[in-house]
Amino acid sequence: REDRITLAHGSGGKASRTLVEAVFLAAFGNPLLEPLEDGAECTVDGARLAFTTDSYVVSPLFFPGGDIGDLAVNGTVNDLAVTGARPLHLSASFILEEGFEVEALTRIAASMRAAADAAGVQIVTGDTKVVQRGKADGCYITTAGVGLLDRPVRLGVVHARPGDAILVSGPIGEHGVTIMLARGELDIHAELASDTAPVHGLVAHLLDRTTGVRAMRDATRGGVATILNEIATAAGVGVVVDEDAIPVRTEVRGACELLGIDPLYVACEGRIVVVVDGAEADTALAALREHPLGEAAAIVGRVTDDQPGMVLLNTGFGGTRVVDLLVGDPLPRIC
Amino acid sequence: REDRITLAHGSGGKASRTLVEAVFLAAFGNPLLEPLEDGAECTVDGARLAFTTDSYVVSPLFFPGGDIGDLAVNGTVNDLAVTGARPLHLSASFILEEGFEVEALTRIAASMRAAADAAGVQIVTGDTKVVQRGKADGCYITTAGVGLLDRPVRLGVVHARPGDAILVSGPIGEHGVTIMLARGELDIHAELASDTAPVHGLVAHLLDRTTGVRAMRDATRGGVATILNEIATAAGVGVVVDEDAIPVRTEVRGACELLGIDPLYVACEGRIVVVVDGAEADTALAALREHPLGEAAAIVGRVTDDQPGMVLLNTGFGGTRVVDLLVGDPLPRIC
Ligand SMILES: Nc1ncnc2c1ncn2[C@@H]1O[C@H](COP(=O)(O)OP(=O)(O)OP(=O)(O)O)[C@@H](O)[C@H]1O
Ligand SMILES: Nc1ncnc2c1ncn2[C@@H]1O[C@H](COP(=O)(O)OP(=O)(O)OP(=O)(O)O)[C@@H](O)[C@H]1O
Ligand SMILES: [Mg+2]
Ligand SMILES: [Mg+2]
Ligand SMILES: [Mg+2]
Ligand SMILES: [Mg+2]
Ligand SMILES: [Mg+2]
Ligand SMILES: [Mg+2]
Repeated sequence: REDRITLAHGSGGKASRTLVEAVFLAAFGNPLLEPLEDGAECTVDGARLAFTTDSYVVSPLFFPGGDIGDLAVNGTVNDLAVTGARPLHLSASFILEEGFEVEALTRIAASMRAAADAAGVQIVTGDTKVVQRGKADGCYITTAGVGLLDRPVRLGVVHARPGDAILVSGPIGEHGVTIMLARGELDIHAELASDTAPVHGLVAHLLDRTTGVRAMRDATRGGVATILNEIATAAGVGVVVDEDAIPVRTEVRGACELLGIDPLYVACEGRIVVVVDGAEADTALAALREHPLGEAAAIVGRVTDDQPGMVLLNTGFGGTRVVDLLVGDPLPRIC
Repeated sequence: REDRITLAHGSGGKASRTLVEAVFLAAFGNPLLEPLEDGAECTVDGARLAFTTDSYVVSPLFFPGGDIGDLAVNGTVNDLAVTGARPLHLSASFILEEGFEVEALTRIAASMRAAADAAGVQIVTGDTKVVQRGKADGCYITTAGVGLLDRPVRLGVVHARPGDAILVSGPIGEHGVTIMLARGELDIHAELASDTAPVHGLVAHLLDRTTGVRAMRDATRGGVATILNEIATAAGVGVVVDEDAIPVRTEVRGACELLGIDPLYVACEGRIVVVVDGAEADTALAALREHPLGEAAAIVGRVTDDQPGMVLLNTGFGGTRVVDLLVGDPLPRIC
């Protein structure tokens, strides 16, 4: 274990997980936090609430397809949605760097409002702190959100079991690659935009049509590979995915090859991974595809009982390789 | 209105207020946010919830009497408590600077747990982002909190009316002065520690003993002067306070004189301002004094119907002066 924080601790991958367990879970540990799901389930006065938070430090602040503002709203909406909750109320807390343009802040606030309206949530409380020049990078935003768990389902990756199918809701990696390209440090040009979107409608449609959903996750930092590992670890099962089945746009695949990274590890901000009873895989796939955000959904793999805790990828060439947690951080500050 | 963010926008004073109204309220505006109280009241599935958030950017991270961790927990507990809610669940989101010591982070997490235990709340969800060296200052924390409004009271500074009494729960300005001195840039030494403390118990005791409480506020950035102005503005009333009645420790008074600042504007992190029906002023005072955190509570002023919107201070010398919102930021990054 390192003595100092590294960028890898923010990657969503192996180092992130280790830090969260060794420092935060060790200190805060309680039954509501312990599942380490996207949101915590809290019962307050009989109401089953979901509660979640994320900080946003994306650079640049504005990028094709969105900005830090709609990212901060959609990200928290999505963490609520994948717990099965109806997202309701958001908080928004800003850490601003001295010298940041008020006009940029105004645009960010406007896109947060638009994103909140699109997701049917309200920003009901907030905070604003300012730090000296050189102590931040323009604008950091932390959102938290409260949702209502109004369906009689209990979701969680711990419920995955052999025979379940694994789906993704659309092409992966667009957000991460878009941010990398938006930094303009690479001589790569591609017609790409962030996939940032609120998935609450897609999730609601899926849950309306299928009873066999065991777990959902939004594939953010660390990408789909991280989620697959979380399923394998939490449920103590094996996961097998087929490389050819995973939807990846040509532009993303091309940029990833040039960047030397695997799209499986690249962040999305509007895609979910679904674990569903194998008998309902086709129903779930059809439901996802009926929704505009799920048109390119695909069944990508299955849960097995061999190799518990491991994720195996059947490559396009007929081989098999282990998909581990991300080590290092090839794409810092993607969200 | 400025084009760029200044430190004054983070002071809690006049510039903060203007920014919140012109940018955030203008964009997010909705009936739950509009009262601009310490927390928002949200009804979810019949449960009356309070929801609040704050970011913490205090420098230094460790100081006499506390650290950024217990500040972040107590601050959110207090914003819930003064709305009349029972604080229940907290989120904790970290923005870490590359290179930050894991050992310091571990100590911060431990003091968050201790503060949570002391306040009877649980940290149930969190997030961890890392930014490059020079893009933060060690560790920033954002907490959000959910509480249950389980009393049949509706509190808010808008309810203040002529004849009401104004109380403070203890000596003011200790937190702010402690932080200033902890920076070691001034050649002032004083036996002072932050007053950071969770006020939920004090508030519960007060509400158990008094029915006439109209509003409570925790006096953080901008100090008691800011709260008094918020009362005057929100309720369209006059506020008159007596300088001699305001409890200020000798060490705080001395340091403030040397620093050239007025203790009325200096942040506390464990003091509340209470507006109560004048007929219940003594009951409220007695209730506060019965609690360890309120031993030095005092009636400091009253609500009037002349000079609506204004705060007047009767000085120790028999004069009167206007107490305006804080302009500028004499004490940046106090919380
Ligand atoms: N500092 C922290 N304190 C407490 N819990 C934390 C902390 N950081 C992360 N967690 C918990 O760890 C789990 C994983 O967090 P993570 O941020 O990776 O999930 P996520 O929000 O779904 O992903 P992303 O942040 O990429 O959107 C969650 O249950 C979260 O509550
Ligand atoms: N960026 C923001 N977006 C939305 N609302 C905000 C924002 N910043 C502040 N507010 C709102 O403005 C009001 C005052 O906020 P402020 O942070 O001054 O209160 P506080 O948390 O009680 O004080 P402190 O932050 O010093 O502890 C609150 O109602 C808060 O929700
Ligand atoms: Mg998530
Ligand atoms: Mg998230
Ligand atoms: Mg605040
Ligand atoms: Mg407050
Ligand atoms: Mg506060
Ligand atoms: Mg997160």
